[in-house]
Amino acid sequence: MDETSSYARAGVNIAAADKLKAKMMSLIRGTHNDSVVGLPGGFGGVYSLTELTGSDILLVGSADGVGTKLKLAFASGKHDTIGQDLVNHLVNDILCCGARPLFFFDYLAYGRIAEEIALQIIDGLSKACRQNGLALLGGETAQMPGFYADGEYDLAGFIVGYVSRKNLIDGSPIAEGDMIVGLAADGLHTNGYTLARNVLLEKAGLKLGDILPETESEIFSELMKIHRSYLPAVGPLLERRLLKGIAHITGGGFEGNISRIIPEGLTAEIDVRSWKVPPLFQAIQNRGKITDEEMYRVFNMGIGMILICDRNDVRNVIDACQETGAVVIGSCRKGRKKVELKR
Amino acid sequence: MDETSSYARAGVNIAAADKLKAKMMSLIRGTHNDSVVGLPGGFGGVYSLTELTGSDILLVGSADGVGTKLKLAFASGKHDTIGQDLVNHLVNDILCCGARPLFFFDYLAYGRIAEEIALQIIDGLSKACRQNGLALLGGETAQMPGFYADGEYDLAGFIVGYVSRKNLIDGSPIAEGDMIVGLAADGLHTNGYTLARNVLLEKAGLKLGDILPETESEIFSELMKIHRSYLPAVGPLLERRLLKGIAHITGGGFEGNISRIIPEGLTAEIDVRSWKVPPLFQAIQNRGKITDEEMYRVFNMGIGMILICDRNDVRNVIDACQETGAVVIGSCRKGRKKVELKR
Repeated sequence: MDETSSYARAGVNIAAADKLKAKMMSLIRGTHNDSVVGLPGGFGGVYSLTELTGSDILLVGSADGVGTKLKLAFASGKHDTIGQDLVNHLVNDILCCGARPLFFFDYLAYGRIAEEIALQIIDGLSKACRQNGLALLGGETAQMPGFYADGEYDLAGFIVGYVSRKNLIDGSPIAEGDMIVGLAADGLHTNGYTLARNVLLEKAGLKLGDILPETESEIFSELMKIHRSYLPAVGPLLERRLLKGIAHITGGGFEGNISRIIPEGLTAEIDVRSWKVPPLFQAIQNRGKITDEEMYRVFNMGIGMILICDRNDVRNVIDACQETGAVVIGSCRKGRKKVELKR
Repeated sequence: MDETSSYARAGVNIAAADKLKAKMMSLIRGTHNDSVVGLPGGFGGVYSLTELTGSDILLVGSADGVGTKLKLAFASGKHDTIGQDLVNHLVNDILCCGARPLFFFDYLAYGRIAEEIALQIIDGLSKACRQNGLALLGGETAQMPGFYADGEYDLAGFIVGYVSRKNLIDGSPIAEGDMIVGLAADGLHTNGYTLARNVLLEKAGLKLGDILPETESEIFSELMKIHRSYLPAVGPLLERRLLKGIAHITGGGFEGNISRIIPEGLTAEIDVRSWKVPPLFQAIQNRGKITDEEMYRVFNMGIGMILICDRNDVRNVIDACQETGAVVIGSCRKGRKKVELKR
């Protein structure tokens, strides 16, 4: 990624973060034992229960924060959806391994916030946990004076789910000719907020209450749309074993996330004309003069999750996801580059 | 707790935080299913694997942050022990349920920090994970421009461990006459840093490099002592099933933490003259003019963990923990108040 890209100028340097992550991974691997199941994709960390219980169940865990979408909660005073963003994001992450959620822990850190705000946050977390059949097993509420501005906070979460070893999804069976199905997103989910806020609120000088002509709705309501859980749509497909690979389109966009599950020697070719990009993204791109390339690397562009299946199963997959909104957006062919966006 | 106590004046209000936690608990309970094992103490959240695997293994999880001890890392530029504080703290938390560690996830959030700092942090996390036989299974490194001051960060962690149902420790067998053993701590561990920093660095105007006459050592080295893991000492005692209750002395001090495991109708009577309080605590108390009562509620006072066992087993417990430093600090008697400090 070019250091002078819009996202880097807005304060997020994805290339540097990637390099850091690689070095960290080598330290992290030094802690692993035989129960850690190495996965190429790494949407979740996988731990085998075989030694402990004799069963073939794998635990799949993931940790994440809400990111700078929090700034919108601070600005608007609406704190009851942020927890839903976080829980749904993490449910989707472990879903990429074929895992279903078991339990969740949160970490809420603040200097000084009104009790009402903390309750709104936990209310959102609890609601999404109930919706996903997930037990909110505990958490930490850390008062850290001098760390966070008054009324501000950080919120992170940790999920553990399970999948049997034979149902683990890791992309390895993906083959030439397999089809790529995109599932519709609701707004930005939890990615690209630093750039979106920079473009819309700082550079263009718009207010959260302004109507965006492209969307004919308030900027605030567009940006606060809740990160969608794909468990209701994808869960039944796991039962039917129709999926070979699943990628959650989060930070790193199409290339960064789809490449995580594509085996060596294959290219996931995505035809970006195959779905209608929601007008919010056009509004950000135009005002920020952002290249297509960067848009697809930072934002979900209306596709929150992609599923890869055999060509013969694609009709069944699309039909099962009708309520969610599903469309074929590409296919897999031989090639050296893991992901290619066809314009 | 009195609103005007030193700790509240330093910015942390334990009573308000406790009230908030109670309300949150009712929201959280709404997400629970039959696999959630309700524990009175709540040092860890407990989830049964019986339905999933048929085994009697329980997973025990916990989440925590490092707290304002981080400010010392920022001030000194030493970032390779903070991760050890966090991991050891969480290992101790689930140890209170009799659980041994399985895997760990971290959450590291920052605006802009040097790559070297992030690596130091992960280095500390990895080291402590290896020492505790814990797999660092993943984590999130969140770049959040505009959230954290340059060079500053927040660090949280999530642990999952296991215990068989028959070895779960929850304090319920504790009976009249049982003995309370205290295990020695190394400095403040991770609690009371807001108050300690306020007293020593702000009010008394001392510098981190100053020698504290009471300890005859640098303030910095006293305050940065690593939170000790009690797994090496307590693990073998779990094997031998000698313990009825375990409490980690963290935020909330003696009363807040010991009361979590004492059954109704019993009083844990702690004789505070039974161990030598390390001079660091005296230094803080004198300079801050802090009452005894508050000291024992905020700090560990040199006792990082307490073990409760049958009177007949106390010799075995003490002997096994000799390397750690163990002393009888009290016993259990009939009474309405769960914890009483005898001076």
